[in-house]
Amino acid sequence: MITHPSLLILRPFLKPSLLNRTLFINSQRFSIRCNSSLATESLNSDTNETGRSGSRSSPPPAGSLQKIDVNPPRGTRDFPPDEMRLRTWLFNNFREVSRMYGFEEVDFPVLESEALYIRKAGEEIRDQLYCFEDRGNRRVALRPELTPSLARLVIQKGKSLSLPVKWFAVGQCWRYERMTRGRRREHYQWNMDIIGVADVFAEAELISSIVTFFKQIGITASDVGFKISSRKVLQEVLNCYSISDDLFAKVCIIIDKMGKIPIEEIKKDLALAQLPGEAIEELLQVLSMKCLTELEEKLGAAGEAVSDLKQLFSLADKYGFLEWIQFDASVVRGLAYYTGIVFEGFDKEGKLRAICGGGRYDQLLSTFGGDDIPACGFGFGDAVIIELLKEKGILPELSASVENIVCSLDHDLQGAAAAIATKLRGRGQSVDLVLENKPLKWVFKRAKRVNAARLIFVGADEWQKGMVGVKNLSTGEQCEIKVDELDTKI
Amino acid sequence: MITHPSLLILRPFLKPSLLNRTLFINSQRFSIRCNSSLATESLNSDTNETGRSGSRSSPPPAGSLQKIDVNPPRGTRDFPPDEMRLRTWLFNNFREVSRMYGFEEVDFPVLESEALYIRKAGEEIRDQLYCFEDRGNRRVALRPELTPSLARLVIQKGKSLSLPVKWFAVGQCWRYERMTRGRRREHYQWNMDIIGVADVFAEAELISSIVTFFKQIGITASDVGFKISSRKVLQEVLNCYSISDDLFAKVCIIIDKMGKIPIEEIKKDLALAQLPGEAIEELLQVLSMKCLTELEEKLGAAGEAVSDLKQLFSLADKYGFLEWIQFDASVVRGLAYYTGIVFEGFDKEGKLRAICGGGRYDQLLSTFGGDDIPACGFGFGDAVIIELLKEKGILPELSASVENIVCSLDHDLQGAAAAIATKLRGRGQSVDLVLENKPLKWVFKRAKRVNAARLIFVGADEWQKGMVGVKNLSTGEQCEIKVDELDTKI
Repeated sequence: MITHPSLLILRPFLKPSLLNRTLFINSQRFSIRCNSSLATESLNSDTNETGRSGSRSSPPPAGSLQKIDVNPPRGTRDFPPDEMRLRTWLFNNFREVSRMYGFEEVDFPVLESEALYIRKAGEEIRDQLYCFEDRGNRRVALRPELTPSLARLVIQKGKSLSLPVKWFAVGQCWRYERMTRGRRREHYQWNMDIIGVADVFAEAELISSIVTFFKQIGITASDVGFKISSRKVLQEVLNCYSISDDLFAKVCIIIDKMGKIPIEEIKKDLALAQLPGEAIEELLQVLSMKCLTELEEKLGAAGEAVSDLKQLFSLADKYGFLEWIQFDASVVRGLAYYTGIVFEGFDKEGKLRAICGGGRYDQLLSTFGGDDIPACGFGFGDAVIIELLKEKGILPELSASVENIVCSLDHDLQGAAAAIATKLRGRGQSVDLVLENKPLKWVFKRAKRVNAARLIFVGADEWQKGMVGVKNLSTGEQCEIKVDELDTKI
Repeated sequence: MITHPSLLILRPFLKPSLLNRTLFINSQRFSIRCNSSLATESLNSDTNETGRSGSRSSPPPAGSLQKIDVNPPRGTRDFPPDEMRLRTWLFNNFREVSRMYGFEEVDFPVLESEALYIRKAGEEIRDQLYCFEDRGNRRVALRPELTPSLARLVIQKGKSLSLPVKWFAVGQCWRYERMTRGRRREHYQWNMDIIGVADVFAEAELISSIVTFFKQIGITASDVGFKISSRKVLQEVLNCYSISDDLFAKVCIIIDKMGKIPIEEIKKDLALAQLPGEAIEELLQVLSMKCLTELEEKLGAAGEAVSDLKQLFSLADKYGFLEWIQFDASVVRGLAYYTGIVFEGFDKEGKLRAICGGGRYDQLLSTFGGDDIPACGFGFGDAVIIELLKEKGILPELSASVENIVCSLDHDLQGAAAAIATKLRGRGQSVDLVLENKPLKWVFKRAKRVNAARLIFVGADEWQKGMVGVKNLSTGEQCEIKVDELDTKI
């Protein structure tokens, strides 16, 4: 960890004229020299993004200067006040719905051991893992999803948990996707999970909660729907071909790409995975089904695939969300660990990616070394839903607002203005206190910008009488109020 | 990115008996081989933590097995429901106080370009940077603090921002500290910053907001206080010795260690930094001052150091927080970029580390290439305050609670119970719906655990009459209510 001071031109108090909004620093190398083939590959594929933030350190010619800009790192976002208000509004809705369904909030580290995400089914999430070695040489990853952490925590808590567990979380998830522009490397995800319920009552409860969320933010059944199937459909089709659990997961991941890549590619991948040609044909035929009766004719009514789905549709009717859902055998979802019902929310105009997705993962806990406990859950991202609200023109208008703006008309009265602000805040009111001596014109402009309901000004004459001026900024009414009466009159 | 499937024994559906809560996976290596001296050093110093999560990949003998456990990575936390409720309570208080002061919430990526934190003053925060190379070979870091990101965003927004900007953020920050046990690698920090106010009115407003926060959570002026000084004190002492800005920052960082390491070490470090012996003696004499009058006698009343401090104490009186603050010349804070007033919150029993800290950083924006805009702010962590609340025995008791628990007394009535739950949720009420067919004894036990106010049970006889049973769980009163009247009667 040796740095050579004379090579550094970043100085704490360097003058702006020298830098003009761009900061030059010497390349810093603390720990890791990297030379793997992957690293070289990404380096080559990334050559046209030098304008973005993040100093490149390989290859770093000694003494060279590097440029950073004021953007957040590639694929990440800042949340200035406008964006933050929208995020807060969205998260509040996630939380409010979760509360209505009796779920408790939990969270996990955004940084997890990489091992938690190593599954060999060929998932996209695994290829795009934002993984690295920490300074103690451990393989870690910025979490790509929340479910493995939840499973880890459930196992850790063991018998101290009363089943069923109903937990929700709202957390940031990461992926490292090379090259593709316009896709972000992080997003926030709302998860709800039920641990310990084997019946599809759990899936029905989860889908109901998402429907409640949609309704709450103004989305209707003509805007979005849920495609629903079960991995047991595939399992029952493949039962005659004695395929292993491993291969089954792999087949699901390949099938999840249907509609995204040509069907011939899918067939080729299935064949490469050693699935017999006959099985492939039968699979594809079943996967095209959009009607439960048709499925029942094919698989019979005795199997769990059909009975689970029928029960779910019957429950949906009782819950009142039947019009939101439809059977679609092609839905399998892209995570290896799903074992039963799977579902995804989609926009009915077909313009956007999946809005949310989930399903049953009865074997994830035992895979992780925990007890054999049934489980299901969903993930709901913050990106597509905002796109949808924009599309529909129903993005909420959320502006800044404050109850009072308080200013002194005289530099010497700043302390008095502070005292007034303290009084109002003591009553729980919000106050934007003007911290400089500014002309009233400036104060009115600021009052408008921060959307203040009322202006309180402290002038020398009024103050001597123990009064302050008060102006209602929506009606324009103005009066003087005794400071002692501020508590009661405001 | 080649993995050899036959070496992997992690299988999605492996049986729990084989694993007994421990997961073995083959060492995975995607990208980086590491061999720096730092890495070797940490490896050696970390040898006794093999029980922790996080697979070690260096040195990874080919084909060896590695063990992970169900704990979060070393130095990080899970937030199960109890801890999450406490975190939510704390954050809500941060947010409520920020709102009362008219601040707008913002956020930034938890992952930033490492260059944002490279300052050569010898800060602890820099030595402990949680930095790494991403898969595209960029030097990035998990943010150790929020201020550099805020400065970056302010510069990015440029003229579109109306000054002063009053922003707050609540975000997770990271450090990579080797060896020391019991200290975490992440914590959450509440920041409030005022950009564009040169006067100490801004500092007064910030300290006032922290005092309001303390009061709100039940902490008094006999529990905590603020030590206040100004870096201009040191600057004025050192003015005669024509020292550079760089050296000044370095001197501040060394002085910040006073009280943590022996005074002889401090002197040695100051001498090593090329500070003349005479200057060292004079500095140490001034730093021992705890009284503004004494400081005024030494520096004279004309300088900014004394006048800023006097004005701040005068404002504190007007705000009503004078009893919370005291002058203490030894406070300089550990960040290189402070330029004026600095302050830190401390517990009066002297048992804990600093609760919060902040100050003026008038040159950070220009250092980053932005306009020359005055600024100040503070950071308030989530760890020490919780310790303090525990010490004082005033940690809030936050239990789970739900308005209704709804259950069917018959498997066939699960749909009916779901319909009742939907009805109640439609009115905004929270409902824990029992998703399995369980005996009433079990339901009562669960109702107690989730702290339900009321039990609603759907039995066959009542349901046929269009009624449900309702039991108030605090009074024990029980009655039957018509389903149609649930809306009005509940």
